Amino acid sequence: MSVKNGRQFLSIPGPTTVPDEVLAAMHRPAVDIRKGELVEVTAGIKKDLRMITKTQGYPFIYIANGHGAWEGALTNVLNRDDKVLVLESGFFAVGWGQAGATFGLDVEILPGSYQKAVDPAALEARLKADTSGDIKAVLTVQIDTASSVVNDIPAIRRAIDNAGHDALLMVDTIASLGTMDYRMDEWGVDVTVAACQKGLMMSPGVSFVIANEKAMERHQNANLRTAYWDWTSRQGAEHYRNYSGTPPVHLLFGLQKAFEMINEEGLDAIFLRHKLLAEATRAAVGKWSEKGEFTFNITNPAERSNSVTTVLVTHPENLEAIHDYCIDKCNVVVGVGIAGLSGKALRIAHMGHINAPMLLGTLSSLEMSFKALGIPHGTGGVQAAIDHLAANVPR
Amino acid sequence: MSVKNGRQFLSIPGPTTVPDEVLAAMHRPAVDIRKGELVEVTAGIKKDLRMITKTQGYPFIYIANGHGAWEGALTNVLNRDDKVLVLESGFFAVGWGQAGATFGLDVEILPGSYQKAVDPAALEARLKADTSGDIKAVLTVQIDTASSVVNDIPAIRRAIDNAGHDALLMVDTIASLGTMDYRMDEWGVDVTVAACQKGLMMSPGVSFVIANEKAMERHQNANLRTAYWDWTSRQGAEHYRNYSGTPPVHLLFGLQKAFEMINEEGLDAIFLRHKLLAEATRAAVGKWSEKGEFTFNITNPAERSNSVTTVLVTHPENLEAIHDYCIDKCNVVVGVGIAGLSGKALRIAHMGHINAPMLLGTLSSLEMSFKALGIPHGTGGVQAAIDHLAANVPR
Amino acid sequence: MSVKNGRQFLSIPGPTTVPDEVLAAMHRPAVDIRKGELVEVTAGIKKDLRMITKTQGYPFIYIANGHGAWEGALTNVLNRDDKVLVLESGFFAVGWGQAGATFGLDVEILPGSYQKAVDPAALEARLKADTSGDIKAVLTVQIDTASSVVNDIPAIRRAIDNAGHDALLMVDTIASLGTMDYRMDEWGVDVTVAACQKGLMMSPGVSFVIANEKAMERHQNANLRTAYWDWTSRQGAEHYRNYSGTPPVHLLFGLQKAFEMINEEGLDAIFLRHKLLAEATRAAVGKWSEKGEFTFNITNPAERSNSVTTVLVTHPENLEAIHDYCIDKCNVVVGVGIAGLSGKALRIAHMGHINAPMLLGTLSSLEMSFKALGIPHGTGGVQAAIDHLAANVPR
Amino acid sequence: MSVKNGRQFLSIPGPTTVPDEVLAAMHRPAVDIRKGELVEVTAGIKKDLRMITKTQGYPFIYIANGHGAWEGALTNVLNRDDKVLVLESGFFAVGWGQAGATFGLDVEILPGSYQKAVDPAALEARLKADTSGDIKAVLTVQIDTASSVVNDIPAIRRAIDNAGHDALLMVDTIASLGTMDYRMDEWGVDVTVAACQKGLMMSPGVSFVIANEKAMERHQNANLRTAYWDWTSRQGAEHYRNYSGTPPVHLLFGLQKAFEMINEEGLDAIFLRHKLLAEATRAAVGKWSEKGEFTFNITNPAERSNSVTTVLVTHPENLEAIHDYCIDKCNVVVGVGIAGLSGKALRIAHMGHINAPMLLGTLSSLEMSFKALGIPHGTGGVQAAIDHLAANVPR
Repeated sequence: MSVKNGRQFLSIPGPTTVPDEVLAAMHRPAVDIRKGELVEVTAGIKKDLRMITKTQGYPFIYIANGHGAWEGALTNVLNRDDKVLVLESGFFAVGWGQAGATFGLDVEILPGSYQKAVDPAALEARLKADTSGDIKAVLTVQIDTASSVVNDIPAIRRAIDNAGHDALLMVDTIASLGTMDYRMDEWGVDVTVAACQKGLMMSPGVSFVIANEKAMERHQNANLRTAYWDWTSRQGAEHYRNYSGTPPVHLLFGLQKAFEMINEEGLDAIFLRHKLLAEATRAAVGKWSEKGEFTFNITNPAERSNSVTTVLVTHPENLEAIHDYCIDKCNVVVGVGIAGLSGKALRIAHMGHINAPMLLGTLSSLEMSFKALGIPHGTGGVQAAIDHLAANVPR
Repeated sequence: MSVKNGRQFLSIPGPTTVPDEVLAAMHRPAVDIRKGELVEVTAGIKKDLRMITKTQGYPFIYIANGHGAWEGALTNVLNRDDKVLVLESGFFAVGWGQAGATFGLDVEILPGSYQKAVDPAALEARLKADTSGDIKAVLTVQIDTASSVVNDIPAIRRAIDNAGHDALLMVDTIASLGTMDYRMDEWGVDVTVAACQKGLMMSPGVSFVIANEKAMERHQNANLRTAYWDWTSRQGAEHYRNYSGTPPVHLLFGLQKAFEMINEEGLDAIFLRHKLLAEATRAAVGKWSEKGEFTFNITNPAERSNSVTTVLVTHPENLEAIHDYCIDKCNVVVGVGIAGLSGKALRIAHMGHINAPMLLGTLSSLEMSFKALGIPHGTGGVQAAIDHLAANVPR
Repeated sequence: MSVKNGRQFLSIPGPTTVPDEVLAAMHRPAVDIRKGELVEVTAGIKKDLRMITKTQGYPFIYIANGHGAWEGALTNVLNRDDKVLVLESGFFAVGWGQAGATFGLDVEILPGSYQKAVDPAALEARLKADTSGDIKAVLTVQIDTASSVVNDIPAIRRAIDNAGHDALLMVDTIASLGTMDYRMDEWGVDVTVAACQKGLMMSPGVSFVIANEKAMERHQNANLRTAYWDWTSRQGAEHYRNYSGTPPVHLLFGLQKAFEMINEEGLDAIFLRHKLLAEATRAAVGKWSEKGEFTFNITNPAERSNSVTTVLVTHPENLEAIHDYCIDKCNVVVGVGIAGLSGKALRIAHMGHINAPMLLGTLSSLEMSFKALGIPHGTGGVQAAIDHLAANVPR
Repeated sequence: MSVKNGRQFLSIPGPTTVPDEVLAAMHRPAVDIRKGELVEVTAGIKKDLRMITKTQGYPFIYIANGHGAWEGALTNVLNRDDKVLVLESGFFAVGWGQAGATFGLDVEILPGSYQKAVDPAALEARLKADTSGDIKAVLTVQIDTASSVVNDIPAIRRAIDNAGHDALLMVDTIASLGTMDYRMDEWGVDVTVAACQKGLMMSPGVSFVIANEKAMERHQNANLRTAYWDWTSRQGAEHYRNYSGTPPVHLLFGLQKAFEMINEEGLDAIFLRHKLLAEATRAAVGKWSEKGEFTFNITNPAERSNSVTTVLVTHPENLEAIHDYCIDKCNVVVGVGIAGLSGKALRIAHMGHINAPMLLGTLSSLEMSFKALGIPHGTGGVQAAIDHLAANVPR
């Protein structure tokens, strides 16, 4: 017996909650893929991708998850045996590099940690040392969903500029786009990687790469290009060329609707909403942490992301009980630690289609579980979250 | 700017949240109404109606809201100018009687109040005084959604029996069925009225009357019968006769799914869930009430229902601000006071497809609004709700 | 083994095929019923009802099927023991009268037949004979779905006028509205009855009555009025008053979308489409009839409706085989004969959300069944339908 | 004005009509991707893939269209500069080879034509000439959607065996799987490529590769492997490994339902349905061809596929008018000629979720267009189709 039956609260860092409107947009008959409405949909999504990444660049839409887009990004601008510098700050930049290694890239990791953001000074130093210009690209993430760190992309750009280095700056925004500001052109990002299932609120299956002019130039001679990912082929005239074959009809309908919702709310409002809900989460976690069982994974408060919060637990043997309680009693799915934090952390997602009661319902269920399971925690976490929102939501 | 964008929390006492599974069950092409699957659906719903009202009686399915079912119930068992005794405990029994007056019933109200349950002793006294047997039916509700009182139906039955009176006992369970125990046969109820959009979790549009043998006997000579509502006509062989015409195809598909979910959870689990969530709500309201601005409408704690909680506000001018804040900032729709409490109360629904995070998200948003608006309230309402659930949800 | 698996073709005269867009419009969370979007939806539907019936009158929306609306129409304008004159031309006007008899109307049938339209001259004669003005209302249908006749409503109005009679003209347009022209005000109809599940393309569950000023005057003193159907009560200020209680939220969303589709296509285009498809059907049936096994039920071609075609079969024992073949082999559901034609006819519906390939697919399946079952028929029925459309669809 | 409004008939060779049940299965909230239901869904889809390809091999599920699966198939079993022999019989095998050339394969085309199937004797001769074993793989399609030819896979296998050649046999079944028999193991196919949006009735976005033991052995040393497509990586323990990242949640739900429908109908019944509908189509096209304007693209009747029929037009200037008429007047989307037949043909798809009335409605609309546009054609095409089905659908 439980107090579970009702809507499930999916509080994992992707896929996030897909809005009912988006699900509904996918529920319609298939259509012709050669001309008509679908051609407009593709054009609209490309426009929206430019809008949300703040660029005049070239967007490409892949039927693939983010790992596919990683491959689409690297193969289109690099050559076999090119060196790429991966900026560690959790798992995902490293994972991207590892993927590149499988098709012949020479991957060097700029050492970092799961507990803090990329250090621009270290990057600058490393690039200055690369006097021969071996490093062809710098790979980083804006937010790492494993560690929940947020990196300072403009600072990373400045480091490259300070070093006077010509490497491409390639940024994975999969866990950040649509949750915080991102300015591809202003910040000098050459290649942006994104995916639909987090801040963009869509069912997973579509990912994106956006290239600027410099990336398009490198593309001309990149010998890692393959038919499926190839940008030039995807710029062909026929509509299907955008997708190197049959378009993902219903996913596009869903994505169109998701962007419609994003445009309706407005980026500034979306970013503020994420900021407030993230702060509320951190207020709760801060309280809970008072008894020593819970700790923020990211040590520097300024480096904690607004899309997900990774919480280390002192006694990992409590984790399964917490997760089970939340699911079995409350129908709340909380994220687990992954990669280097597997079995050591819980992750609370607060991105995409999420509002105050969804977050507070999740936090309340977590606090219920701590209390019911006798796990030491500072009480009043939810109260702190409520108080923060009451004080800070603009009237 | 707000923290609103995400799923809406519909916390009004009907229609309640329709489960995604139920909405999905309605999303399919129309079918033949003469034979095949739909005939099975009708039979299944009737069986489920008997299951949930714990009766061997005769269920009738009306395309109508609850007010239609009121008319269906009265016209099938009564004659023009019959006297009916209405047991006041809020608005709805009185409203039912008023409806009956429009087609010729002689309606007498047994005076009660919005603040407490029906007094069985007063009923017994009144029936004993009716030595000529003028009163043909006693009308009551199990839960009144306006006052949020719960009446003791077995005690009302005993009052009638103690008086040795032959009146039919007619019970409106619209706001209670599927949220608390109801035993039509064991409790000696002659006619039960129900509707689909509260505890049964369905989109509104279908309502029900269930009659026992005694009611079916009265039916034989009832001169208020009309074609659309008539039970005898609805017992005809052809499938459409169940509906006096075209069946409400998609509503039936939805209702079938809702009952499937009810059967899967099980009535005992459902009733316990409602009890726990109602107690959690009352724990929160109890805290909030400490500063004098909020009061439980129902004075006796034992008479507070498990489906909705009506909260009086000392300064009604605060009500609109609270409602607006909840909607505009948090996407939470909280119920308003109606009928005799119009403009004087807020109503928190906790029935149907609702779980801990849905309730706690709603309560959190309310507490946010109190704090943000500077409305005096005891803090820690949500905390009290969390604590109650943590302590009482069975492991 | 069959060639059945694919979309079902529902070719029955109600419920008709519900457009995917309409089903989708019903698939969304419930909303507040007190204010906001739903209030607009109600207002929009009322406006659309006036548009499609071409009236400035007063529309009422019932949660009920057409039989409920029959009751809503009669009880609001008549008194107990009033005489009504029912114009027979199949089943439905008579059925409406029978319903009225259950609540005290004195029903007289103007004899007609299942094979032809109402004779205005006979009506005029009867009304002239009613010198005492006993007849308070004349009840007729525009199209009778049992016989598939279409009646000439302006001619019926002229008959009443010629007789100088004051009876209300009450017209059931359930099977015609949205398939052919209807002009309530211009034609002098006092009360129009309609329902959503035929020409209006909606899932069944909502029906309508529209009253003009004369009907509203009669309403003032009508003593058959009851709470649920009552027009005056339904004109109250609060939104729920429109529905005498909880509105049928999802049905309203669907209806709104159906009217949106109707407005987009335009009434003239809709009527022409129905005319062309009906003519194509009749071209096919005409061919099939050449061998004596099939006959049009309506003898006068000018009286055959554009929404449904009733076909008599000489050997009724063939009917079940035809229906079974169509369903089991082709997934096509064809209508059966009802009421006076039960077991004697098949009915091909061609109304609502239906286009050329849907109709031609249905007719092809019927012709397949005739051939496969060895039922005598003129071949080339479908060919005749194709040829008719090719020649007559405007370029 | 038209007779268009109603359901759209999508008669293109992919995406085909997605069943309402499949669309509905995708309309539900996202779920956890780490454990629970989705893990079962993946396992079930793999089992179904083995069932429908009749193999004990290893299935891999790609988020990608068929072109992605092409890449997934080649890169997992081949090395840079390997020679592959492509069997021309329309466009798609050649296109597959062209894709391989982009990542370093040495592609040789065994010449064929758009008008006929692969010649096994020519293949045998070519392989016998490859005494040094340079050819590492033979690439062919079972059905080519451009030409509408069906190739004889067992005969191709025998040709390879007769030549005593060790090349892998790689078969693209994208346009055939689920429409006709396919026996991967019995026929000795080493690698099967498939996709979801044709015979499998799903919305596009997921494709498949199935490998046998021999292919898995080649895989061990294949140096074209990349992270996203890599089979070894996709055999990892965690559920996400199956998808090299986030699974396409809703597409998997849809696919599960599609396979459920396939299992319910049964492969033999499905194949017979496709055969009968294809024959009916060819009966119609045969009639229409009598006046010289239309010709079957595939000259040998035995080589015409059961999933799509390509029809050459003598006067290509008629094509646009035909397509426009079908869409604008009838809401029927007929396929166009592609690749080598671009602007020269129309293609009628008859695969997937299609039954007799859907096909006959499409054919009827085409015949309407011919007649309305004055395009010379033998009349009675639809009649021939009806007659064929009536005579051959099993009773």
